[in-house]
Amino acid sequence: MQPYELTATEAAALIAARKLSCEELARSTLARIEERDPVVRAWSYVDRDMVIRKARELDKTPPASPLHGLTFGVKDVIQTVDMPTQQNSALYVDHQSGQDAACVAVVRHSGALIVGKTDTVEFASGGRMAASRNPHNLAHTPGGSSSGSGAAVGDKQVQLAFGTQTGGSHIRPAAFNGIYGIKPTHGAVSREGAKNYSHTLDTIGWYGRCVEDLQLVAREFRLLDAEFAKPVQIKGLKVGLYRSPAWELADAYAREALFEAGRRLEAAGAIVTELTLPAGFDRLDDAQQIVMRGEGRGAFLPDYLGPKRHMLAQHFLDIVGNSTKITPAKLVAAYDLAAECRRTFDGMFGADLDVVLTPSSPGEAPEGLSSSGNPVFNAMWTLLNVPCVGIPVGVSPRALPLGIQLVGPRYSDSQLLEIALACAPAIHVKQDGKLTPLKAEVSAMA
Amino acid sequence: MQPYELTATEAAALIAARKLSCEELARSTLARIEERDPVVRAWSYVDRDMVIRKARELDKTPPASPLHGLTFGVKDVIQTVDMPTQQNSALYVDHQSGQDAACVAVVRHSGALIVGKTDTVEFASGGRMAASRNPHNLAHTPGGSSSGSGAAVGDKQVQLAFGTQTGGSHIRPAAFNGIYGIKPTHGAVSREGAKNYSHTLDTIGWYGRCVEDLQLVAREFRLLDAEFAKPVQIKGLKVGLYRSPAWELADAYAREALFEAGRRLEAAGAIVTELTLPAGFDRLDDAQQIVMRGEGRGAFLPDYLGPKRHMLAQHFLDIVGNSTKITPAKLVAAYDLAAECRRTFDGMFGADLDVVLTPSSPGEAPEGLSSSGNPVFNAMWTLLNVPCVGIPVGVSPRALPLGIQLVGPRYSDSQLLEIALACAPAIHVKQDGKLTPLKAEVSAMA
Repeated sequence: MQPYELTATEAAALIAARKLSCEELARSTLARIEERDPVVRAWSYVDRDMVIRKARELDKTPPASPLHGLTFGVKDVIQTVDMPTQQNSALYVDHQSGQDAACVAVVRHSGALIVGKTDTVEFASGGRMAASRNPHNLAHTPGGSSSGSGAAVGDKQVQLAFGTQTGGSHIRPAAFNGIYGIKPTHGAVSREGAKNYSHTLDTIGWYGRCVEDLQLVAREFRLLDAEFAKPVQIKGLKVGLYRSPAWELADAYAREALFEAGRRLEAAGAIVTELTLPAGFDRLDDAQQIVMRGEGRGAFLPDYLGPKRHMLAQHFLDIVGNSTKITPAKLVAAYDLAAECRRTFDGMFGADLDVVLTPSSPGEAPEGLSSSGNPVFNAMWTLLNVPCVGIPVGVSPRALPLGIQLVGPRYSDSQLLEIALACAPAIHVKQDGKLTPLKAEVSAMA
Repeated sequence: MQPYELTATEAAALIAARKLSCEELARSTLARIEERDPVVRAWSYVDRDMVIRKARELDKTPPASPLHGLTFGVKDVIQTVDMPTQQNSALYVDHQSGQDAACVAVVRHSGALIVGKTDTVEFASGGRMAASRNPHNLAHTPGGSSSGSGAAVGDKQVQLAFGTQTGGSHIRPAAFNGIYGIKPTHGAVSREGAKNYSHTLDTIGWYGRCVEDLQLVAREFRLLDAEFAKPVQIKGLKVGLYRSPAWELADAYAREALFEAGRRLEAAGAIVTELTLPAGFDRLDDAQQIVMRGEGRGAFLPDYLGPKRHMLAQHFLDIVGNSTKITPAKLVAAYDLAAECRRTFDGMFGADLDVVLTPSSPGEAPEGLSSSGNPVFNAMWTLLNVPCVGIPVGVSPRALPLGIQLVGPRYSDSQLLEIALACAPAIHVKQDGKLTPLKAEVSAMA
């Protein structure tokens, strides 16, 4: 096994035991990137010499955190002091931000090795797509807008990576690339230094290759419920299987994947029941669009007013120009609906419900790179501000990864990761390192 | 009259008519700063040569906006590409941010002349106070955390300035310095590139010397209700005079100032009635503290984890260390209370209410620089996310300025400025350039 193949958790143990040096891990990682980047194109920037130099520096320092020396990719809408932040925009070619974003600073102080910047949809919004491809099938998108981060972790080019989610930009790529991801409670992790799109929605998340990897990073952020989180037994865990208002848009095999995940949890001892949510939840997807575009007007105004407006995709001119005619009344109604549903949703947890199980996407990663997929199974959770953990569940009839997400109430991030830790072995059944096909896939392929 | 004495609106007219050059205005401004900065100390950075060079460049360009050549101060927690952003922190001495914050980029694209950075309370939060003094009485604070911006506009050292408000950091200094200020609806103006403290609360605002000045800037931000705003007649305007839950903390003359503002509006034809708000509003001040400190944990975590933690004030160690024991349940309850009160408050506007009139502070600017004053009359409005316009109303027994604020529902910023435009001449009665003393002051001084 090459060092690049190690999960973050495995590598951390070897580094702590001095059985693996940061430089060895870095060189293995860089070799993997060199081999694969010509086809996967996950990266917008990697400075090979700097990575090795920083790895050597880390080898001279005693580890202060389990993140010491672990390899980290950073979505290129997130600022880094030592690398450009280009946002996949012609306006920001080679742009140097002058500082690390808050999330980068936190993991860097913990000793993480920032390997490079990963490609993104323009400003993590729309317009120019990332060049990244799905490592499981190069003809397909890795999803977006956290395209490169999802692809890089999915292709074992890096152990951990930051993404962002405003609609479905983080959890959907987790599913498409067969990896784990957390979108924490909105506000639990500072997004200072990441491109702003919508202050109500923008959330920093991270990817890993297992739940333990996600937990390694979560601990560094000192989440508010960390001291209250307790280990979870899957036996008796109350799981609410929620089809979501977008159910009709899901492919048959994706629906089956959700039910299969439910069956697997049930077989492991969980109590799985179908969850229904009040009527207002059906309007959250529309409300998310209104909030995102209404707040996006201010976010893109500076570049719209600047001398290089012609370098912005039409998408941004439409947002600033309010092409969807958002009014103060519509925006305020969207906020108030979200607030009401947040309270209702959180209130459902307790005696009858521990966690929600729901699709991460309508199906596999679409073919081609012109669409990064539909965020319709993600947007409502982003607007609810609740934490979501994406877990791989199997593969589609075309052998592309499928995922589900577990969702908890606001500020239960650490507890949700404990639940995910208990559930993942049941949901994510691997055989010889491959995802197990679902029964539905077998029948579809037969 | 020297150019520096002109309001933004007056100067804009002269510049448009080519009766005043940007360089003349800049030189007059710089002379005023040179004369006054040794005692008022509003500025943390001014590059005299750069200001003159940029003014000359502006003189070579036809004005594209009324902001062309107008002088602007920027609170030093807001990034500027050509000046350091030091945040009054020992960690950020001479720090170059690499880009303009969104708000700076907007006014710079409109031709505003950024004169310099204004002093601030450390990270616009707590800890190290600004060195700035109140220009009306140097023994008193100008308020904070937008200390330098308030003092600079109040002392006519600059026409316009950006501040920020998370608790009461923008509207309170407006009152203490005898100037006008707007804290827009939270989210109406992108705060990208300003130091993050609390994403639910942080709001970019600006100061001017009259309502028209505030409107000049507001237009550049293309606020969502701009196309719906209509001119306002004071006759018949329904004003809700709201004492606020902190009323017992207000000095007698400050209470009298609020009533006097109400009487003046009534005399001008407005219908002024006392407004009461439901019981939940009494808890908003506590909820604002919980939200601010709960979200502040993540905001200050990067510097807390960094090698220079010892350079942070104890205030920040307390916030990251969660010294007030904020739990997920408390934080979520604060969010839900805020959401409920936002809806209730906005719903009061319409048939019976056009605008709320309420104090900006418990009284005059406190003596000394160790406290920037109490935000207890501001915090609830910040948490409600509603727009507030600060208007001078008179002076205290010690001849320090007093202000009131007008408050409207969310995303009614342009309309609130129209209301303020109609109300200000009645509220802010000037005699020979001096604020009129209130009756209460006369009796208190007698």
